[in-house]
Amino acid sequence: MGGFRINADRLWSTITETARFGATGRGGLCRLALSDADRQVRDWFREACEDAGCRVHVDAVGNMFARRAGRRAGVDPIAAGSHLDTQPTGGRFDGIVGVLAGLEVVRTLNDRGAQTEHPIEIVNWTNEEGARFRSMLLGSGVFAGVYSPEFAYDQRDREGHRFGDELERIGYCGTAPCGRRRFASFFELHIEQGPVLEERGKTIGVVIGVQGMRWFEVDFTGMAAHAGTTPRAMRHDASVGAARFIETAFALADSFGEAVRATTGVVEIRPGAPNVVPESARLTLDLRHPSKQTLDAMEEALRAALEEISVGLGLRHEFVRVSSTPPVAFDAGCIQTVREAAETTGFDYLETVSGAGHDAVHVSRVAPTAMIFIPCASGVSHNERESASPEHVAAGAEVLLESVLRRDRRLASA
Amino acid sequence: MGGFRINADRLWSTITETARFGATGRGGLCRLALSDADRQVRDWFREACEDAGCRVHVDAVGNMFARRAGRRAGVDPIAAGSHLDTQPTGGRFDGIVGVLAGLEVVRTLNDRGAQTEHPIEIVNWTNEEGARFRSMLLGSGVFAGVYSPEFAYDQRDREGHRFGDELERIGYCGTAPCGRRRFASFFELHIEQGPVLEERGKTIGVVIGVQGMRWFEVDFTGMAAHAGTTPRAMRHDASVGAARFIETAFALADSFGEAVRATTGVVEIRPGAPNVVPESARLTLDLRHPSKQTLDAMEEALRAALEEISVGLGLRHEFVRVSSTPPVAFDAGCIQTVREAAETTGFDYLETVSGAGHDAVHVSRVAPTAMIFIPCASGVSHNERESASPEHVAAGAEVLLESVLRRDRRLASA
Repeated sequence: MGGFRINADRLWSTITETARFGATGRGGLCRLALSDADRQVRDWFREACEDAGCRVHVDAVGNMFARRAGRRAGVDPIAAGSHLDTQPTGGRFDGIVGVLAGLEVVRTLNDRGAQTEHPIEIVNWTNEEGARFRSMLLGSGVFAGVYSPEFAYDQRDREGHRFGDELERIGYCGTAPCGRRRFASFFELHIEQGPVLEERGKTIGVVIGVQGMRWFEVDFTGMAAHAGTTPRAMRHDASVGAARFIETAFALADSFGEAVRATTGVVEIRPGAPNVVPESARLTLDLRHPSKQTLDAMEEALRAALEEISVGLGLRHEFVRVSSTPPVAFDAGCIQTVREAAETTGFDYLETVSGAGHDAVHVSRVAPTAMIFIPCASGVSHNERESASPEHVAAGAEVLLESVLRRDRRLASA
Repeated sequence: MGGFRINADRLWSTITETARFGATGRGGLCRLALSDADRQVRDWFREACEDAGCRVHVDAVGNMFARRAGRRAGVDPIAAGSHLDTQPTGGRFDGIVGVLAGLEVVRTLNDRGAQTEHPIEIVNWTNEEGARFRSMLLGSGVFAGVYSPEFAYDQRDREGHRFGDELERIGYCGTAPCGRRRFASFFELHIEQGPVLEERGKTIGVVIGVQGMRWFEVDFTGMAAHAGTTPRAMRHDASVGAARFIETAFALADSFGEAVRATTGVVEIRPGAPNVVPESARLTLDLRHPSKQTLDAMEEALRAALEEISVGLGLRHEFVRVSSTPPVAFDAGCIQTVREAAETTGFDYLETVSGAGHDAVHVSRVAPTAMIFIPCASGVSHNERESASPEHVAAGAEVLLESVLRRDRRLASA
C-alpha cells in the first residue's frame, strides 16, 4: 500500500498482531474489560507507546493517556483514541482501530521527526462495551463527570466481581484523579458499525453528531378467548394491537423522514397458544433520530396513534418511555477539521450521524470533539465476522493524522 | 322453576351433586379421562341409569350406553349424550350437561310412564377432552371408525400410563366391540363455549354444523441488524412481516364475512432484543369457517398476500398448513327436529355453527346427528369459572326431551 503518509502496513500488522490478546480462535476477540486479555493488551499498549516516546498516564478508572510532547508548554493536548475492550464475541476493529491508529499517528510523526505545537495524546477508554460491567461508555463517562468513580467501582460482572477490585487486580487503577485532564480537542476514529458508507461507496464518514435514542415499552391488554367460538366482532385481540402498533410506528417513521430509526425488537404474545385469542402483547420500540424535536413529535404522534388503536380494538394499553439519550452535536470546529482532512487526503466522504453511542459522546461534554468513520463489511459489528479492509483502516488513520495536524495548526494560530 | 316437563330442580341437583367427583375446591372439576374421579362418576352414572330402569352397556374403549327400552323390537335407539370427563381445570357443564340431561329425559319419561317407539340411549363418550390422552374426541372417534381401538389403547398420558391399561384399571374396558352399535339418531346438548347466544339474548342454539378448521404456520426470515446504525431502507425486518401478515389475515377475514374466525395465537420474534432488528418471526394462524370453499379461497388469498408481503420487505417466508379439519354439516332431518323442538317449547333460538369440535362430529359420520347449544356465562369454558344458569340448563334439557320425542314419532311414522 502506498500513497499514505502513515505506514499502512505497520498499522495493519499492529492490528493483526494485537488480535492475539483475547483471540477467540474463530477470527474474533473476547477481550472483556479488566480481564486478563485486557491487561495483556494494556501492557502491550503501554510499552508500545513508551517505545514511541510517549509518557503513559493511567487515571483512577483505568483510562490510559499516552502523551507525545509538543513544542509549546502549558497547552492542552490534541487527543485521539477509542477503546481496546470488546464484546464477548466481538471483532478486531470496533474501538481498536481508533486506539491503534492514534499510535500510528504518533509513530508517523516520529518517523518524520515532526513536532506539533500541542502535545498529542492517544487514549484508551475503560469498559466502553458495557459487556462485562453493565454500564457502557463507563471510563469516558467518569472522565466527563457523567458518572462518579464510585459508581464505576461498584459495578459487578455476572460472577459478582467488582469493577474496582478487578481494576486493582490487573494493575490499572491509576493514582491520577479521573477527569482532571483537559483536551484541546478529541478525535475518535471508529468503524461505522452500519452499512451506509459501504452501500454508498464512501471511504470516510465525517461524523457530525450522534442520534438521540428513546426506548419505549408498549403493553396491550385484551381478553383471552376461544379461537373457534368467539366471533371476530366480540374479540379484544392483543396480537392485532401489536401488529397495528408496529405498522403505525413504521408509517410514522416514514412520514418523519429517512433519518428515523425505528425498531420493534421484542414482541411477546400471551398466552401464546394457536387456538387462544391473545390476551396480552408486550413490545419494545427503539426510536432514534438526530433531532430532539423530531423525537418529541414522534413520541407525541405515537401516543395519539396508540389511543386510536386501543379504542378501535377495545384494548387497554400502557406506553412507557424506558430511557432517553439526547442527540449529540459534535463541535463545529472539529467537524470542519475532519471535513478538510477528508478533502485534503482525497477520500470520498459522507457527512453522517452516528447511530450508536461512542466514548466521543461523553468526551464532547468536556472538550471539542468529532469522529471519523470508516466502512465495515456489510455493517456487521459486535460479531466475530466484523471486518474492515486494510485500505479503509489506513484511510481512516490518514484522515486522523491530517485532522490532528490541522487542528494543531489551527489552534496554535488562533 | 315451573313450566318444564322435565324436572329442572332434579337436573340441577344432579349436576351439583355429581360435581363432587373430581371437585377442585375452587368450583371447578379435574376429572381427567380414566382417572379415579372418572371411575367414580362412571360408577355413579351406571347406578343412576340402572335405577332409572336402563340397561348399561360398555364398549371396548369405555363408551357407556344406557338403554331405556322402546315399544318396538329391532329398531335402533334415539341416542342423546356427551361426555363426563373434563379439562384439568375444567368446569361443571362442558359435556356433563349433555349426559345428565339425557338421564333427566329418561327420568322424565319414567315419571310420566311414557313409552317411546324406539329405545332411548344415554351416552357417555370416553376421553372427549384430549386433556390426559392426547387425541380429543377419542371414544366417539373409535365408535365412528375414525380411529382403531388399538390407536386408543396405545395413547399414553404424561406419566406414561397407557390408555388401555388405565381403562382396565378403572374397570371400564367393556367386552362389546366398539362401533357395532347403531343409532337411529343422535342429539348432543352442550354449552356453547362461546359468547354469541348470551350476547344475542338467545336461550337455544340450533346447531347446523361445525366449522372447518385449518392451522397454519408462517415463518419469516429477514436479517438481524443494529437498531441504531441500519437505515430503514436497508433493513429486512421480520417483525414488520409479522405485523403485516396479522393485519392482512384480519382484513381478508373481514372481506370473507363475519363467519370467519382468524386467530394469530403465537407470535415469536428472534433474537428478541430491543436494539436488534428482528431476524425471524414465527406465527400461527387458526382459520375456521363453515364452508370448505371459503377456507380454500382464504388459504389461496393468504398465500398470494404472503408473497407480496415478503417481496415488499425483502424477507423469505414459509407458509405451511399444519392441520385441516373439514367442516361438518349435521343431518337436515335432525336439525329440523331441534328447530321444531325449540319452537314448540317457546325458547328464543338461533341457528348457529359450532366453533369447537364435539363428539357429535364423529357420530355424524355414522348416524343422523344434530346438536343443541345453551349459553354459558361470557362464553368462558375450559375454566373453573365456566358457568351456565339453571334456567338455561333446564331449557336445554327440555329441548332435548322434545327433540327425542319428536324424532321418535317422526321415524316411527315414516
